[in-house]
Amino acid sequence: MQDVPLLISRILTHGATVHGSSRITTWTGEAEPHRRTFAEIGTRSAQLAHALAGLGVRDDDRVATLMWNNAEHVEAYFAVPSMGAVLHTLNLRLPAEQLAWIINHAADRVIIVNGSLIPLLAPLLPQLPTVEHIVVSGPGDRAPLAGGTARLHEYEELLAGHPETYDWPELDERRAAAMCYTSGTTGDPKGVVYSHRSVYLHSMQVNMTQSMGLTDQDTSLVVVPQFHVNAWGLPDAAFMTGVNLLMPDRFLQPVPLAEMIAAERPTHAAAVPTIWQGLLAELGAHPRDVSSLVQVTIGGAACPPSLMEAFDALGMRVCHAWGMTETSPLGTVARPPAHAIGTEEEFAYRLTQGRFPTSVEARLTGPGGERLPWDGESAGELEVRGPWIAGAYYNGPDAEPLRPDDKFSADGWLKTGDVGTISPDGFLTLTDRAKDVIKSGGEWISSVALENALMAHPDVAEAAVVAVPDEKWDERPLATVVLKEGAEVGFEALRVFLAEECGIARWQLPERWTIVETVPKTSVGKFDKKVLRRRYADGELDVTRL
Amino acid sequence: MQDVPLLISRILTHGATVHGSSRITTWTGEAEPHRRTFAEIGTRSAQLAHALAGLGVRDDDRVATLMWNNAEHVEAYFAVPSMGAVLHTLNLRLPAEQLAWIINHAADRVIIVNGSLIPLLAPLLPQLPTVEHIVVSGPGDRAPLAGGTARLHEYEELLAGHPETYDWPELDERRAAAMCYTSGTTGDPKGVVYSHRSVYLHSMQVNMTQSMGLTDQDTSLVVVPQFHVNAWGLPDAAFMTGVNLLMPDRFLQPVPLAEMIAAERPTHAAAVPTIWQGLLAELGAHPRDVSSLVQVTIGGAACPPSLMEAFDALGMRVCHAWGMTETSPLGTVARPPAHAIGTEEEFAYRLTQGRFPTSVEARLTGPGGERLPWDGESAGELEVRGPWIAGAYYNGPDAEPLRPDDKFSADGWLKTGDVGTISPDGFLTLTDRAKDVIKSGGEWISSVALENALMAHPDVAEAAVVAVPDEKWDERPLATVVLKEGAEVGFEALRVFLAEECGIARWQLPERWTIVETVPKTSVGKFDKKVLRRRYADGELDVTRL
Repeated sequence: MQDVPLLISRILTHGATVHGSSRITTWTGEAEPHRRTFAEIGTRSAQLAHALAGLGVRDDDRVATLMWNNAEHVEAYFAVPSMGAVLHTLNLRLPAEQLAWIINHAADRVIIVNGSLIPLLAPLLPQLPTVEHIVVSGPGDRAPLAGGTARLHEYEELLAGHPETYDWPELDERRAAAMCYTSGTTGDPKGVVYSHRSVYLHSMQVNMTQSMGLTDQDTSLVVVPQFHVNAWGLPDAAFMTGVNLLMPDRFLQPVPLAEMIAAERPTHAAAVPTIWQGLLAELGAHPRDVSSLVQVTIGGAACPPSLMEAFDALGMRVCHAWGMTETSPLGTVARPPAHAIGTEEEFAYRLTQGRFPTSVEARLTGPGGERLPWDGESAGELEVRGPWIAGAYYNGPDAEPLRPDDKFSADGWLKTGDVGTISPDGFLTLTDRAKDVIKSGGEWISSVALENALMAHPDVAEAAVVAVPDEKWDERPLATVVLKEGAEVGFEALRVFLAEECGIARWQLPERWTIVETVPKTSVGKFDKKVLRRRYADGELDVTRL
Repeated sequence: MQDVPLLISRILTHGATVHGSSRITTWTGEAEPHRRTFAEIGTRSAQLAHALAGLGVRDDDRVATLMWNNAEHVEAYFAVPSMGAVLHTLNLRLPAEQLAWIINHAADRVIIVNGSLIPLLAPLLPQLPTVEHIVVSGPGDRAPLAGGTARLHEYEELLAGHPETYDWPELDERRAAAMCYTSGTTGDPKGVVYSHRSVYLHSMQVNMTQSMGLTDQDTSLVVVPQFHVNAWGLPDAAFMTGVNLLMPDRFLQPVPLAEMIAAERPTHAAAVPTIWQGLLAELGAHPRDVSSLVQVTIGGAACPPSLMEAFDALGMRVCHAWGMTETSPLGTVARPPAHAIGTEEEFAYRLTQGRFPTSVEARLTGPGGERLPWDGESAGELEVRGPWIAGAYYNGPDAEPLRPDDKFSADGWLKTGDVGTISPDGFLTLTDRAKDVIKSGGEWISSVALENALMAHPDVAEAAVVAVPDEKWDERPLATVVLKEGAEVGFEALRVFLAEECGIARWQLPERWTIVETVPKTSVGKFDKKVLRRRYADGELDVTRL
């Protein structure tokens, strides 16, 4: 067989010719959205590559984007890797100091920024010594950028006049194509580097029938940000099959989302659950014709069953997907197996995280490092392996890749940090984060299962369960409970409730209980269990032992 | 990204676990067909690999199959490459001397043969010095095999007792996995070697939405033989997504095909047009419920429009695909573009050979070696490039791969020998074989277009057009015509008909005409133009010059 490398330039060339009339529509907030064909993206990507080469971009230089989802961002997706450089998508939701840290760690030479995001970038510039060029696209006041050392360029002016074709180099398919940093809730952010090979294979997978399975008859509303694991691979996948893209740019609020669905009639959408909850409320208050939208891929967090049912009632079929920055991200997709379709089992399958594709190998590792069976019951830490799964982190321009022990097994599998079960037919159900699971006498107790059970009690407003040290069992669960106003239920009654109403096994029932006024939360609203564990260690909590 | 090779063992392991309950149903001609789950195929493939290792199969030894489409043949598909050996599928339609030539050229060490095909194999055995083991599967008299030097084994006995798992080796993905010889209408057959990488990528493509696009809700009736370019990749693709397979074994006649469709209710089928013509006649004579079958992939030759319309009327949607042994075979699939669906253009798109996928690059080369545009009008020889396209032929165990000039361009593209046009949106329309096209004054004239136009005349039964030497134009067309009984149309009238009724350009009209009693045909029923050219050269034809 011919030794032809799997390159992003091939995806671009294919999309710009065979699917040249497919379109990217970018919402502008004005009467008419902005439209550009794949053929135009092809010629403009060539122009962008010439322009970047003209700025001195060479070899595997990093070109960063601080951009919303829009046609220009897709141009950067194709031009930068195809010319051999590395696209670094910056997460515009990060705190300023993390953003600066990441830009410096990647040693970005160029940043392409949307005009509306200049207020975010400008204050950082004095701290960014590697950035030589700033290219601005779209509306927004340029004034705050003045006075720095980096040269400023207008995106459209930079492209103008360059040739509309580029002789894309024949690269090694394992060469770096793009990078994305994990948000780093503990420690510094870590950079994940995608290769041409990984992006190409991942794009094929996205287009396989049991993933998103879209065609050129579809229009996909890409709400998931392009800086969030490559928008789940949708822009690259779209150029393989001609899927039209509807890009919301900065208009991510429920009202404009509802408007763009009604006006542009997408058939598919991809987003995290929180965005959809807002959209659902807006549609309840101001009904619109959203009947075109029949498939919604939800990832980033599980979709609550009630939300899934609400979408079903609207004719939108929610499909769970699971993945992470380190998995490109497609790890699982929850399409029920044929035998479950039309049966009562179907909804249960849809509530799982989904089924692994051929290219993602999965195994579960128990508390003692042992392999656990795919029996739908044994819970262990999920480890994955495959051609689009990270094998190391980026450790800076001249350093070896970083492979921390807690993230990679000795034989090279990614330790996901997620705990769950896998059914015999390969469906993943996540039950906890590995750092939150309680390791009691060589067995694992899911903190999330206990929390959900406690919060099902009518007197409980919130409950968080954390591991605390125990002489006999290594760790045992501590239940911290927020009672509803005026409620007076006792710990013993809650313990009985867990055992008798919720089916929690006796050995998993907490002995240690405490009432708190509120559960501490992280900046994104998740329970901050670190704080609870520290308060317990410091003796700040008033703990009752049953 | 992790450096994980793309291996056939991964496809097997995935199918046997995640899609373990999907099934292969093999027709037996008896009341009950034979059924085996993918999980069983997984354990039996492991047993087969142990058994073959026990016979001494090592390294890249060739293990041949002379088998119909059935579950055991699929076991060989997975076991042989997964253990590191090379599967050689033998075309049971070949003349005996070609079969022997191929087995010797590949130096096959083992042949797995269906009992019903022993009469084909037994007479060849004395000419096959490399064959050490013959493994027989399924019903059929074993007696003719007795007395040779090769050891005989029963397939089921050979597997029995071996472990149900195999520690599949981590191979180089570019290693040879399977091979298939072209039928070799001119010269010796040529061996095409598929790699693990090419089979894996091709299988992903088959499962992409714009190829066959099947899921575990589908059952595919695989009429195209497993010895014919890996049954178009369907068995490997099925294990990626859980597509159920319906295998006809030796029951390829219209009546059993109609019976198995009615009984097993496949949703998809894959075959060459001639098989379907017979099926259609049978269904006309004896109607059955074939409503399950909604998608029919047809390749190997174009489906006549009338046949396509007849299938449409039955609710079966025919989808053209084009490929060859050298292209694994998926080259194009004729799914109309979104803008044509529901319009008058749709049928025209379905009659093309189809659209190229991302991984198949295509270009057209004109009579003078120049590149021609994708304008839907410029006809040239099709050249293709991609990770599942052959780059050389197999030249025997210890020789360099063979790269004949007439099959590969200097820069490594495969010259397909097909002449056609490509539309701006990447749809291929084949107009002729390169060896049959008439090269007249630096332009090409399609022999097929002239033949089709002539055969549209009511007095013409058959017509073949061949190139003959011409002093002024290098080559010009010679029209050889078979008139219907009693018809007396003159050549001048036919020439006027071509120009005025069929829109053939003046410079393409033949000057040389001859009446023949019948057009000579090859063993598979195609016009044998070699014979006509030789008869012309020998002065055997009575040619009129207008």
